[in-house]
Parts: sequence; C-alpha cells; structure tokens
Amino acid sequence: MPVEKRHPIPVKEAIHRVLQQEIYTSSERMSLYECEGYILAEDIVATYDIPRFDKSPYDGFAIRSEDSQGASQEHRIAFQVIDHIGAGTVSAKTLEPGQAVRIMTGAQIPAGADAVVMLEQTVETEDGFTLRKSFKHLENISLQGEETATGDVVLHKGQRINAGAVAVLATFGYSEVPVFRKPTAAIIATGSELLEVEDDLEPGKIRNSNGPMIAALLQREGVQVERYRIQVDDYESSLAVVKSALEKHDMVITTGGVSVGDFDYLPDIYRALEAEVLFNKVAMRPGSVTTVAVAHGKYLFGLSGNPSACYSGFELFTKPAIYHMMGATRYYPAIVRATLMADFKKANPFTRFVRADVTMTGREMTVKPSGFNKSGAVVSIAHSNGMMMLPGGTRGYQIGHEVEVLLTSPETYQQELYL
Amino acid sequence: MPVEKRHPIPVKEAIHRVLQQEIYTSSERMSLYECEGYILAEDIVATYDIPRFDKSPYDGFAIRSEDSQGASQEHRIAFQVIDHIGAGTVSAKTLEPGQAVRIMTGAQIPAGADAVVMLEQTVETEDGFTLRKSFKHLENISLQGEETATGDVVLHKGQRINAGAVAVLATFGYSEVPVFRKPTAAIIATGSELLEVEDDLEPGKIRNSNGPMIAALLQREGVQVERYRIQVDDYESSLAVVKSALEKHDMVITTGGVSVGDFDYLPDIYRALEAEVLFNKVAMRPGSVTTVAVAHGKYLFGLSGNPSACYSGFELFTKPAIYHMMGATRYYPAIVRATLMADFKKANPFTRFVRADVTMTGREMTVKPSGFNKSGAVVSIAHSNGMMMLPGGTRGYQIGHEVEVLLTSPETYQQELYL
Repeated sequence: MPVEKRHPIPVKEAIHRVLQQEIYTSSERMSLYECEGYILAEDIVATYDIPRFDKSPYDGFAIRSEDSQGASQEHRIAFQVIDHIGAGTVSAKTLEPGQAVRIMTGAQIPAGADAVVMLEQTVETEDGFTLRKSFKHLENISLQGEETATGDVVLHKGQRINAGAVAVLATFGYSEVPVFRKPTAAIIATGSELLEVEDDLEPGKIRNSNGPMIAALLQREGVQVERYRIQVDDYESSLAVVKSALEKHDMVITTGGVSVGDFDYLPDIYRALEAEVLFNKVAMRPGSVTTVAVAHGKYLFGLSGNPSACYSGFELFTKPAIYHMMGATRYYPAIVRATLMADFKKANPFTRFVRADVTMTGREMTVKPSGFNKSGAVVSIAHSNGMMMLPGGTRGYQIGHEVEVLLTSPETYQQELYL
Repeated sequence: MPVEKRHPIPVKEAIHRVLQQEIYTSSERMSLYECEGYILAEDIVATYDIPRFDKSPYDGFAIRSEDSQGASQEHRIAFQVIDHIGAGTVSAKTLEPGQAVRIMTGAQIPAGADAVVMLEQTVETEDGFTLRKSFKHLENISLQGEETATGDVVLHKGQRINAGAVAVLATFGYSEVPVFRKPTAAIIATGSELLEVEDDLEPGKIRNSNGPMIAALLQREGVQVERYRIQVDDYESSLAVVKSALEKHDMVITTGGVSVGDFDYLPDIYRALEAEVLFNKVAMRPGSVTTVAVAHGKYLFGLSGNPSACYSGFELFTKPAIYHMMGATRYYPAIVRATLMADFKKANPFTRFVRADVTMTGREMTVKPSGFNKSGAVVSIAHSNGMMMLPGGTRGYQIGHEVEVLLTSPETYQQELYL
C-alpha cells in the first residue's frame, strides 16, 4: 500500500484556483419579494428622474422667493394661503404675488413657487402666516433629477441584492428581477463510522454532524440541498452515489474520505470521473487534506471529516465559489484585525485556522479562541463567529498580539451596546 | 392646528427603552434541519462523552507502549500486525507483547493497546512494521471525555443556532430542537402619495419602496411578513388597519406618517389604541421622528417615511427587538472602527447615521459614505454594508478620521482577498 505523495499549496493559491474556474449558473427572473440575497444578472437603470418633480423636503409653505425679500424681525412679511396640498396631490393653482400654498414633505412644488418656508419659521395669521427672513431662489426645494437621472445605472450586474437594492427595484417599478440562479448542492457524508442523527449510538460509531452542519451553512446562503444517505466505505457504491449526485447538482460536497488512508476512496473516485484535481493538499491546519476538483463543469468539494477542518474548508473554498458561480463581483470573506485576549502558544509550520469569538462593540475589537478551555471541536464551532488566521511559524501567539480574523457572518450580534 | 411638542432622547436611551419591554415569543420544537438562525429555548447537554471511547487521532498502528521501549535508529523494534480496523469497526482482539493493530483515524483503541504509532513513523515488514523510537503510555490517544463529558451544557438557552450548533445538536442526537418562535410582522406603508410597485407612475406620486425594503430585512431574519395594502391618508381607515394587523401579528411596522404634519395620523392612532409611546423623538438624523410604542403586549414601530431613516430605524430598533423577543442573549449590532476615506463636512447637533461601504480586508478597515456623489438616498442604501455613526457636534469629519460603523450584515463580502 504505497502512500500517495501530496504537495501542499498556500491557502491563497488554493482559493484562487477554485475561483479561476469558469463555472457559472444561468440567469432567471425572480419576484421582487423573493430576490433578496440573489446576485443581479443585469445592470438596472433608473426609469425616471429622482426626484421626479421639484418637491418639498419639509412640511411648510411654498412661496415665491421674491415676495420674501426684505423680511426681518422688525418687518415681517405676510402671505395668504390659497391651497393646501398633501404628499401625492398636486395643486391646480398658480401662485400670484403674496400667495402661498401649504405643502407637506414630498409634495410637488406648485406652479409659480420657487422656495419652501418651514412650518417652524412662520407665525400663523387669520388667512395665512408671516415670516421674518428672506428666501433664495430654489431654497428648500429638492430639484427634479438631482439624486438620480433617467438612464443612470443604479444597480450593477454582479451586485448582491440587499434590502436597499430591493427598495431601488421597487422605486423603479421592477416587480420581476433578473438574477443568477442559486446553485444546488449534494452533500455526501462518507465514513462507515457514521450514524444518522436519529440512530442510537453503537460501539465505535458516531453520529454524522458534518452533513447537517454543511446543510445549515448552505441553507443560510439560500442553496438548495439534497442530503445523500451515508455511504459505507466501499469504492463501487461510493462512486455510483457521487456520479448520480453530480448529474443532478451544481456541486457535490463530500465530508471525510480525503486522507490517504486505506478506506479513503475519494482520490480513486476523482480519477474514475476524470476530474481535474485543483489541489489535494493545502498548507493549513486543520484541513490540509482538503481537496477541490472539477468534473463535467461542476465543483467537487472534498472537505475533511474533522468538523473544524470541514467548517474552515467550507468558509474558505465553498462559500466564495457559490457567489463566484452566481456571478457576484464580491465573494471574498471579510477579515478584521483584533486583539488576542488569550495565549495561544502552539506553534505550527502551516497557517492555523482557529475557531474564535470576536467582540465588535466599537470600543475595541477583541478575539479569543472559542474552544479555549475544554470544549471540543464541534462545540467550539457553535460558540464562534469567526476564524483566527495564525500564520505558520516557530512561535505561538500571546495576549495582546494583533491577529487577523475571518468573519463567518451573520453571528455578529453582540452582548453589549457601545454608543 | 397646534404643533405637537416632542423632546428628543439619545439613541442609546431609545434602544434601551425598546429592549426593556418584556415581550417574548413562546417556544416550540423545530426539526434539526430547519433550526439554523433560531434562538435556543433550553440549555442543551452532552448525552455522552466525547470522545466516547479512547480513539486514534491518526492513521497508524495501535501498540503496547512498553513494547517500544529502547527502540532507536540502530535498534529498530519489530511488531506483528494481527488485525486491521477502520473507523466505525472495533477489533475483537487483545494485544499480546509485540503485536499491533492497523488503525484508522477515529477508530477505537483495541484492548491491550495504549499508544498509537503514525504510519509515517514505521517501515513495513512482511508481517508488520518496525519503528525506531519509544512511545509513552497514552501517546497519540484521544481519551474518552477529554473534550466534553456527559451532562456538560454544550449550548446555552438564548444562543443563536448557527451551523456549529447544528453540528453539536446532531452529534448528541437532537433531531428536534427547542427554539423560540420567530415573531410575525405586519408592514403598513402609509401615505397617499404611494403607488404599488406594479403601478404606473402618476403625477405627484411615487412607488412604495419602504414596504418591500422592510419586508426584505425581515425575511432575511426569517420573520414572516404580511404586507397590508397601502392606506390613504385617512384616520378612520388607518386605525382599522392597524388594529386588525395588531390582532394578527407580534409587531406592526408602519412607514411614514410619524411627523407632526396635518396628514400624519399615527400619533392619534397610538392614542386610540391606548398604546404606551416609548419615544417619538430621537436625537438622530435622519429619522428623528421615529416612534416606538407598545400596545396589548405588542410592538408598534413607527418608522420614518424617508428611506434612509426607515432603514436606520429598522437596524437600530426593530432588528434588536426581534432577537430580544426570541430570548436571544446577543441582540446588539456589531460596531467597528474604520478610517474615513472621504470628507464629510456637514456638521449636525444630532448623531448622524450615514449609509456607508466598509472595506474589511484585514490590511486595513476603511469606510466611505455610499451616497457620496450624486446617488440618492434609496440608491445609496443598496450600495452600503453599514452605517457610519457620526456623533453630533459643531464640526464635520475629514479623510483620515477614525469613525464608528454599525455593520448591517450580511453584506460583508469583499472584492479583494488579503491573506
């Protein structure tokens, strides 16, 4: 049994190899009310000017600015209110000298008016109000098109549709939105030691936790998941399952089976599928055996069976690939610098990824390993909102060191408020 | 028409008033495969030890450590392999002196063995292998219970269930999970100037964008939304709609109608409902008229009709309240410090919330207003992943200043990778 020789590549190089692939999903049209979180498949242009008409930014009175010239504390000028318009209504009247129209925030400036007086700047009279200052031409008027002009690209192809983008689409009347389809994924947990969650424990076996964990990570990104039954460590049946999953889905994610041990069949399966193995060894701990391959224009993610490594592999390779496939222009994880609040003395030649809890209150950004005391690998993922990245070297890290942390949103909610 | 007098309170005080309310959802049981993003309603305990048995952390050979004593480069000691076990299987054999069992990562240590030799540390022979170093008692063995012992609380009531928590629940056989129910929400966009997204434009009117925006923000948190038809600015019919929404939902979110203008009926509606108004003026821009009230044990969020203010109000008050209602122990937004990359010279006595784009690549954290050039309020929300918080004062802010930014996840994906 010869041991396969593998050559580790840097994490950054591994990520780039994954994202160099030209594997994309098709585009489709989606209801405005369901498109949040999708990636735009076309530029979106403004279908009209914003503001669409000269409008009032305040509750107050529309006036002719020239009528206000010379007003002062000692010489208040009186106006007669001839109409009263709410937002959404338009006055049919045209202002004559000395006249004003009561106007609400957002309402269209009536003909003849060229300035707005705020309610607070007036004193009521029987048929109108007086004011004590003069107004300039166009003072307190939001001009047509000053924010956005017809034809301006307001949202870009490749942009993630957030709630703000939904508001823009609504504003311009896009009730259907061109988006890239979300990929679908097959999850295959390998290993004859694995039981289903519902199963009673048996000697020598453990329940499959990587499968549900990866399913949850995928579902959070809106990726539809098919979970395949756990495979016994048997080459022929494993190959058949991977083949059938690959036919149905855009990506096949396996957990476990990527080492070079006797029962690890994935390298053979990749050969049988004539897959191009992008890498099968990464200079990182844990998860150095993480493998990514491409076959028939689809991704095969061979994540480690170790829960922490499985999680890191997903965050580093699978999640960016999902957004890359959907044509997103932004798909890299957010990385912050934080002050280490615990000693972490283990040195390692490879870059270490350590599950971590980041505190982001504005006052300070601090981080500590979430599995620092006795809690185990799986438990510590549950208590983390990021991964510390500790570059390889001969020394460990100490309290007070500044380290980099990759955020694994959205677990960024904080226990304290700092305002 | 007397103008109602309102007294602004600080943003922090406003948030605290919202979160002081004892308004909680009930608990329910949820399938493991659907519980991601929910809040745990009970502590979860380990149902067995992890590791559950003494196991091998490596692929290699289980030996009796005493048999390896005295081994060296010059004096290699030979072992005979008597069995071969994969993960999930247990050897029926007990080791005698000089014997070894081939063992896979994760497999149970066979009887008699007390150390594991890594594959790389051996040289194969006809019936086994030789090694050149001695091993200590329990060397390379993961001991039963060393990570987590039976009965340990592994997940806490009030914790958000992330993918790691799903893995923990799977590990300990929790196929059903106790969670707090997500609240449901009614959204009522007020204002007779509003058209539906599908409607053609009419003079003086704009399409309702706040409603779809707030719906998208709620849906991202998994909150079920009922959108009510846009109301004309009429007190009686508005009151009837708010009443009916309040009966059916845990929270009623209105947009617009909170000013003190003639057509703003919400203050009257709160009075008619005998609601306790927690505040109706906050020392912030935009959105100073944001109102939060409580009636019949339910929240009424009166968000501003200005899109930016509507968005800020949701992030500052509604989102934390949703997690507070679900019994979460963490519900405050994440706040980071970033270097301002653009001048922002407008001074304001109130705290300003400015839609912003934060770059988080690890190398540096920078922020710029996302509506810096000509793009309008709604468009700039679409291009933001955070809100700068600029404390009120008499001066503006300049390039190079360090400012605080409230993250509005999950739009934290980056265009560049820094590793």
